[in-house]
Amino acid sequence: MATIKDIANKLGIAVSTVSKGLNGASDISDDMRQLVLDTAVEMGYASKKMKTTTTRKVCIFIENMDYENIDQFGYDIIVGFKLSAARRRWEVTVVPSSLTLQTEEKYDTYMLKNGYSGAFFLGFTLHDDWVMQLNKTTVPTVLLDNYIERNNHVGYVGTDSEEGIDLAVDHLKELGHTKIAFLNGSKNSMVSDQRYSAFVNSMNKHGLPLDENLIEFGYYVPDCAKYHVPSFLKNGATAIICASDLIATGVMAEVVKHGLKVPGDISVIGFDDLPIASQLSPPLTTIRQDRIDLGKSAFLLLDGLIHNVSISKLLQRAKFIKRQSTAPCKNRPANKSTVK
Amino acid sequence: MATIKDIANKLGIAVSTVSKGLNGASDISDDMRQLVLDTAVEMGYASKKMKTTTTRKVCIFIENMDYENIDQFGYDIIVGFKLSAARRRWEVTVVPSSLTLQTEEKYDTYMLKNGYSGAFFLGFTLHDDWVMQLNKTTVPTVLLDNYIERNNHVGYVGTDSEEGIDLAVDHLKELGHTKIAFLNGSKNSMVSDQRYSAFVNSMNKHGLPLDENLIEFGYYVPDCAKYHVPSFLKNGATAIICASDLIATGVMAEVVKHGLKVPGDISVIGFDDLPIASQLSPPLTTIRQDRIDLGKSAFLLLDGLIHNVSISKLLQRAKFIKRQSTAPCKNRPANKSTVK
Repeated sequence: MATIKDIANKLGIAVSTVSKGLNGASDISDDMRQLVLDTAVEMGYASKKMKTTTTRKVCIFIENMDYENIDQFGYDIIVGFKLSAARRRWEVTVVPSSLTLQTEEKYDTYMLKNGYSGAFFLGFTLHDDWVMQLNKTTVPTVLLDNYIERNNHVGYVGTDSEEGIDLAVDHLKELGHTKIAFLNGSKNSMVSDQRYSAFVNSMNKHGLPLDENLIEFGYYVPDCAKYHVPSFLKNGATAIICASDLIATGVMAEVVKHGLKVPGDISVIGFDDLPIASQLSPPLTTIRQDRIDLGKSAFLLLDGLIHNVSISKLLQRAKFIKRQSTAPCKNRPANKSTVK
Repeated sequence: MATIKDIANKLGIAVSTVSKGLNGASDISDDMRQLVLDTAVEMGYASKKMKTTTTRKVCIFIENMDYENIDQFGYDIIVGFKLSAARRRWEVTVVPSSLTLQTEEKYDTYMLKNGYSGAFFLGFTLHDDWVMQLNKTTVPTVLLDNYIERNNHVGYVGTDSEEGIDLAVDHLKELGHTKIAFLNGSKNSMVSDQRYSAFVNSMNKHGLPLDENLIEFGYYVPDCAKYHVPSFLKNGATAIICASDLIATGVMAEVVKHGLKVPGDISVIGFDDLPIASQLSPPLTTIRQDRIDLGKSAFLLLDGLIHNVSISKLLQRAKFIKRQSTAPCKNRPANKSTVK
């Protein structure tokens, strides 16, 4: 592990200058400070400095996810994270991320400069610059719903989709449904892949027929329903499991557009249990991701990583929430529906 | 949630007698105490009592696992658990389990009677009485290497076999091996199933041929090697991945018995990194389960469950430990070996 002296030697500058650069003193130039920080990160000094720091500061980077109102997906996750952090007397800063932030500076440099001991990434994709740097980072980092291979400093937190989807299939089978469709989120997302396997495994486990025409990838938006629901209906689906509540809102609207009723003709199940789920008409039966607990778990995991416990995955239980969008199967024959 | 009064009403006895039963007072009979405790558990009083208790006591039940010496698998797990618990000021008791203990009393009753807020189960199987009660327990409980479906009070902790096996296959492929055999642990074990899928997935991912003759389930003891290694050798294996270090010791001995050298003719990889792994001749290349960290993680999980964060799974990173039991592939032709 590099020392301040190693950094000074490498740059051919005084130890005191390196120290000023690392500690944000005002009497050196910004360029010199940046050079010191970048070199410190390159030489592996960053993690050492972070571990011996006396301030207990972590941050949440958030991107592509709404979190400012209580109705939005990210809100409770942040609340849960802060609650857990407060119990352990850690300070939490929420930093809305942007392309500029990520291109301006390397992730490790940013963390070192700002004195954070670790971070929680919310809503990022694997293509983000900073996420692509995570296979080499030495900064304790937790990702929601994304997994980085082979780096002891990075962990993944999420909800157990396997059990969640299984609870939904279980419920529909008990209601007599056998032609169950699954409208997934985007392709190339780890969570969509998990939910796809979960659906296939659960249908097999329940002895229900798998029909390729009843399984589709869409996007995590209501609008994707119109591209897939017509074919589900044509192929005789009597129930549709959706990979998110937002998708389910689109599916319910589309079913109604075809002159059918939810749940009288078609049962619909969501995923997430967003606050809107109980406000829909009919109120949505769904698989709950407890977002407060997800936030708490994310902090537990980050705290573990900061203390060198190399946790790779932490999954939260999914909970089945029965409301009014599911009903006993009426054995609706295929092709009954017509678009008005 | 039942109150002391509900319990008194149900049993037709005084509230003060219930209270004495719950608090272990000496002036009521053992039979009456047992009746009060069993009724309290049945009526769901147990978890409430545990959550409001002021003593912070948890326990580790251990069975089928050696843990008394530093060389044994369970030792470091218990050390790690105690370290993490001590940081949060929890008292830990280690309770060697036995059939008698489990048949004498229900798990929840035992926990209530002894004032434990939660437990960590080490070395149990799914057939143990107390494990079979876990689908209904309200006591925060963590299991090593076993998973209980659909109960928010129970969590599973283990090592990420998927990544561990993948690191082993990666290493062997780099050394030029293509005919890689896998000697697994017992059938009907969750961990063996995980390692089996991990091996299949990793071989596919690396574009290596899967040969049914080179994949076998055995037992987690050295002796199982003699039943499978001869056929691996006959079928041209040049490397053998084992599901535990103990299996690997048996495999190495069996390879030598066939007049072949480790690693000159056959590379061998273990799993666990027990203290003996580095003492073997040659020292064993293996996949490390960090047992101190497993123990620490188990406590983190239990602490989460005690605080109502319903974590279902927590996986620890596996680490690849390169020693001398693996070497570049010499393309050993099939059937070269002969049993002496």
